[in-house]
Amino acid sequence: MGGVQARMEAALGRLLPAAHLAPARLHEAMRYAVLEGGKRVRPLLAFAAGEVSGARPERVEIAAAAVEMIHAYSLVHDDMPCMDDDVLRRGKPTVHIEYDEATAMLVGDALQSLAFQLISENRLSENPSFQLEMVRTLAVASGSRGMAGGQQIDLDSTGKSLAPPELEFMHIRKTGALIRAAVLLGFLSGERIDQEERQRLDRYAKAVGLAFQVVDDVLDHEASTATLGKTAGKDSKQGKSTYVSAVGAAQARAMAEDLRAQAHGALAGLGARARRLGELADFIVLRKF
Amino acid sequence: MGGVQARMEAALGRLLPAAHLAPARLHEAMRYAVLEGGKRVRPLLAFAAGEVSGARPERVEIAAAAVEMIHAYSLVHDDMPCMDDDVLRRGKPTVHIEYDEATAMLVGDALQSLAFQLISENRLSENPSFQLEMVRTLAVASGSRGMAGGQQIDLDSTGKSLAPPELEFMHIRKTGALIRAAVLLGFLSGERIDQEERQRLDRYAKAVGLAFQVVDDVLDHEASTATLGKTAGKDSKQGKSTYVSAVGAAQARAMAEDLRAQAHGALAGLGARARRLGELADFIVLRKF
Repeated sequence: MGGVQARMEAALGRLLPAAHLAPARLHEAMRYAVLEGGKRVRPLLAFAAGEVSGARPERVEIAAAAVEMIHAYSLVHDDMPCMDDDVLRRGKPTVHIEYDEATAMLVGDALQSLAFQLISENRLSENPSFQLEMVRTLAVASGSRGMAGGQQIDLDSTGKSLAPPELEFMHIRKTGALIRAAVLLGFLSGERIDQEERQRLDRYAKAVGLAFQVVDDVLDHEASTATLGKTAGKDSKQGKSTYVSAVGAAQARAMAEDLRAQAHGALAGLGARARRLGELADFIVLRKF
Repeated sequence: MGGVQARMEAALGRLLPAAHLAPARLHEAMRYAVLEGGKRVRPLLAFAAGEVSGARPERVEIAAAAVEMIHAYSLVHDDMPCMDDDVLRRGKPTVHIEYDEATAMLVGDALQSLAFQLISENRLSENPSFQLEMVRTLAVASGSRGMAGGQQIDLDSTGKSLAPPELEFMHIRKTGALIRAAVLLGFLSGERIDQEERQRLDRYAKAVGLAFQVVDDVLDHEASTATLGKTAGKDSKQGKSTYVSAVGAAQARAMAEDLRAQAHGALAGLGARARRLGELADFIVLRKF
């Protein structure tokens, strides 16, 4: 995985506008928001999905960078005072703290535009119709029926106790949609687009996207239990429902395990081409951080 | 022009997510931000440009709606407290006042996604490569080298006195880029894409985009002089440079007139197909509101 992450860091650095270009403050802040950040789970998924369809790395990396620009923009906006009001992200001051709120808003706005620019100005498929489909997939995943909609549901439900189906409705949008888009865009960058394989990958991605959130909730609960000795983690302190608050830690862990099995099931028959996707499902569910 | 405006209102109403769909609060607020608003200058330009390339109205209206979603999102974010902090827009409370700041941020974010969804999920050209070019054109116009970049330059220059070349550098991005995109997207929706005509339309659009801002500055100056009897308008009170503050009202009016002549010059030889573009250049420069 380290190879993909290093490759992505270089690609992101190259695809972001140079820091000296005007307006320099905006471009610097965009680079600050995106570079040296995170586990790059979505790019890892895109590269793994590209192995199923025989995608060239120089194409997948652009599709993956577009997804990562969307992910990064959502974190910048989420951290702002009117949303989660966070001052630290990955150990560094958040963008609105390091720069200012207006710049942070524009950083998010411009990163979203850049994502669509990347998919449209580079040749990512021999078939331009597939490329339009990548645009559509990423737009739907980002918008009001996808990520932004999931964040609105999250806002609307703060202080309320959500049942598991409502939690799922929210998380499928808030985090699941973009994870699905990462898998589909990676797959669509490839040379061999088989529609039945595409549906399998979509089933895989739905399971993995939800598993990602369930595991986050479990880890958040365990970390806070370990650190504080008794109370639950940050989300539940903020009055947010989690899978642990909804069904308990043991049941949430069982759910994650079940989703991991579903993900592997969707890959059955794809053989060695899907090996990395299988490893990522394991990594996402079994990780300890 | 009324026909296009009524047609656009219906199209926007149809293309926005229905208010009852979950998350309803977000979808209601998106509709509130976009519908019953403004002069629809960008859609008018898109339809007029479509007449040059023989575009079907049902295609132009979708391209125009995409541009209008971007314009509407930029107004919602601009009005927020961390930017211009406006409580009224077109006589109605701004989105963050009518709803709340977090919702306003998500409204803007989701409208941007919707713009790219519209261009990619509808057939707007027989040639999918032209459609990818529409995506690219709109993305570049919206991003850090276009509209968002122009807003950053505007933020960075508040309280400073800008010379005319610097003002132009800012406005070509802040308002000009999206006006150019409106003209190009309307043109690209058509059946006959002639590259030389496309360049003429781009020259036209550059002139009209800048004229739009110069005239705004003149009208703002005249309105405040008439109302207040002495001091200049809102922009100059906020410490923002305007064409009137940079070169004086008479020189600014002459500049707008020169840009109108440039716009007509770019259309020379296109004949009746460019009649409406010519009328719009006149409307934009000669308007009194």
